[in-house]
Amino acid sequence: MNEIQSSETIAIELARAARSAARTVATATTEQKNHALEAIARRLEASQGELLEANARDLKAAQEAGLSTAMIDRLRLDQTRIAAMISGVRSVIDLPDPVGRRESMGPRPNGLEVARVRIPLGVICIIYESRPNVTVDAGVLCLKSGNAPILKGGKEAFHSNGALVRAMRAGLEDAGLPADAIQAVATSDREVIGALIRADEYVDLVIPRGGEGLIRHITTHATVPVIQHYKGVCHVFVHEAADLDMASDIAFNAKVQRPGVCNAMETLLVDETIAAWFLPKILERYNQAGVTVRADARARSVWPQAEAATEEDWDAEYLDLTVAVRVVGGLDAALDHIALHGSGHTESIVTEDQAASDRFLREATASCVMHNASTRFNDGFELGLGAEIGISTSRLHAFGPMGLEELTTRKFVVLGEGQIRS
Amino acid sequence: MNEIQSSETIAIELARAARSAARTVATATTEQKNHALEAIARRLEASQGELLEANARDLKAAQEAGLSTAMIDRLRLDQTRIAAMISGVRSVIDLPDPVGRRESMGPRPNGLEVARVRIPLGVICIIYESRPNVTVDAGVLCLKSGNAPILKGGKEAFHSNGALVRAMRAGLEDAGLPADAIQAVATSDREVIGALIRADEYVDLVIPRGGEGLIRHITTHATVPVIQHYKGVCHVFVHEAADLDMASDIAFNAKVQRPGVCNAMETLLVDETIAAWFLPKILERYNQAGVTVRADARARSVWPQAEAATEEDWDAEYLDLTVAVRVVGGLDAALDHIALHGSGHTESIVTEDQAASDRFLREATASCVMHNASTRFNDGFELGLGAEIGISTSRLHAFGPMGLEELTTRKFVVLGEGQIRS
Repeated sequence: MNEIQSSETIAIELARAARSAARTVATATTEQKNHALEAIARRLEASQGELLEANARDLKAAQEAGLSTAMIDRLRLDQTRIAAMISGVRSVIDLPDPVGRRESMGPRPNGLEVARVRIPLGVICIIYESRPNVTVDAGVLCLKSGNAPILKGGKEAFHSNGALVRAMRAGLEDAGLPADAIQAVATSDREVIGALIRADEYVDLVIPRGGEGLIRHITTHATVPVIQHYKGVCHVFVHEAADLDMASDIAFNAKVQRPGVCNAMETLLVDETIAAWFLPKILERYNQAGVTVRADARARSVWPQAEAATEEDWDAEYLDLTVAVRVVGGLDAALDHIALHGSGHTESIVTEDQAASDRFLREATASCVMHNASTRFNDGFELGLGAEIGISTSRLHAFGPMGLEELTTRKFVVLGEGQIRS
Repeated sequence: MNEIQSSETIAIELARAARSAARTVATATTEQKNHALEAIARRLEASQGELLEANARDLKAAQEAGLSTAMIDRLRLDQTRIAAMISGVRSVIDLPDPVGRRESMGPRPNGLEVARVRIPLGVICIIYESRPNVTVDAGVLCLKSGNAPILKGGKEAFHSNGALVRAMRAGLEDAGLPADAIQAVATSDREVIGALIRADEYVDLVIPRGGEGLIRHITTHATVPVIQHYKGVCHVFVHEAADLDMASDIAFNAKVQRPGVCNAMETLLVDETIAAWFLPKILERYNQAGVTVRADARARSVWPQAEAATEEDWDAEYLDLTVAVRVVGGLDAALDHIALHGSGHTESIVTEDQAASDRFLREATASCVMHNASTRFNDGFELGLGAEIGISTSRLHAFGPMGLEELTTRKFVVLGEGQIRS
């Protein structure tokens, strides 16, 4: 094949091969899929040398390109990380298979038996950035849920991802499943992705994992449905009836424990009736932890050393040791603030008042609403999904962390005895 | 307000008002929503004169514009149709409210209680063509499920839809809910729709109901998620072990009972082992009913009076008294044909062989798969959803008929006792 192929041709070939393989994995039994997962784990074990060598090439290129230390660290594979990846593959074997799960809707008056049965989504295009472990996570979660992924990782991880995908494809073949059930886009040609996200005849879903810019770009250009995760502007609201020690621990944990992730808190809302007692308590802790505080005028009247917040702060996703703080007039004002500035990710209330908690949990709209808990728990593992392929902040298909079930849909199954419609 | 408003401004004002009203109806109780539905029914009763007058203006314009008799009939309102519409509104009162439905996921090892609770989608933009009853159907289904619709009907029904929406908004106010919970786009300016389907800050979903061209156009230009219903290329496969009388009744009903709808059968697949017996039987019935038969060579060897099918026939959605007929080598060949040519709508097998039925129901991918039943049963009412706002043939969010539950999503609700993440 020495012909020059157009981006569109490459995309359609990938997508067609995926569609065909998807038919096979969609009807594979749980046992077959688990067998393939074990084979993949073994292939990854056997490929350790090759993986480290491929990763070394990516690391060398990254250093030459002057990537940041943080970026290079995210890219790095070592024996520990490879072992964690392999143990991740084996943990998916233990997760329940959603495919085939049946929900009866009972008989209809005409005798038709109606049920809904879970089926895979089909072909899923996953676009992500530098960490190579996403390649394996996404590949095996799609496999277990009977889907055929087309993986497009960052160009920084090109060789690492290539070696990982080769190992996974070999594992599929070891288990008698088609290698094309896991494919990678082996080019950095952006037009191939452009064609894939418009190939709605063959591709059922696009999951972009990355910054807001990437996700907006994909959403604007795709005709295939896209799972959107724009940003996490998460709030903790400390209600007047809060246990203030608990509130301080939650507000501290939500901001400081891992500030760079989407379920970290960005804005702390404090009820005016307790602001004078609570704010010094938490802001002193933030101060000691090196957190920059950007506060409204009422909060600054209690804690003048804070920087003055501007309107932009209420919509900011800092992903850093910075927090916006606002004093609000009570539950209604907190809910209004969240309705206006929340990003639909995670909202938590701290209170000992059951009625206030009930209202907050009912009226705050986000993929996850919490009572007396840190926002950091909005995560597929922490919520009990077993694994997570991403978090959706749009309400369509899935809202919040997406596990195996969220990688499936339901079809109607109707059993008749010759019924016709009159 | 004598200023000239841009299309974008009009769209954003509509969408903002809808977002604000959506917050209120999202937390309205079932009783409040049912009360509003009854108030809407009464307002429609009281508006009968106004409705007929508005409809007369549309009918006059339609006649002057030379619309077809069929189009004009779809547009017409009379006392019987208005009564049916009102009884439709009251029937929605009896449907169970999905909002607030709770599914426990049990406690986590750290003591967090996790549940998933159904919530409305939010603001839904519904774009449809001439029948005015869709205005009321869509409005009340969105209301019952706690959503705020923005309705955009066809320009032919402009005055009728205006009168219907005024009655519904008055009913909302009678019941103490915001009128803006049901809005209509009161302009035929296409750019308003163009702006609404990109207003992802305010609009959660677009449901276009109409031809494939409309849906492709919306999908290409929207950044808001779109429910897609491209077409219904539905099959009936008559297996070698079929009861041939039953097969004839099902194949006849699926094609002839109402050929112009998406769940009508377009292609009949017949197992080669029974083709010589079955084909004359069914094709004679089609012939007497005025059905044009477009058949492959093997079918024509049994029934030479059929027209010769071309490759295009296997992908055709005739929506008419025309049927494509193909003889296939058995179950595998039938499944291959469906995988290649099916549109994911409805697939039915006729057989007395349980194993063949099991395989077909498992392996045929469509929103509804059937055994020994007419494809015409793929419909929200017939499957027991109580009502239907449309049928999705894409697998995201909902696959198949969408009832009240499909107009909702789930959020995670987490109850803690001060848990923080370590």
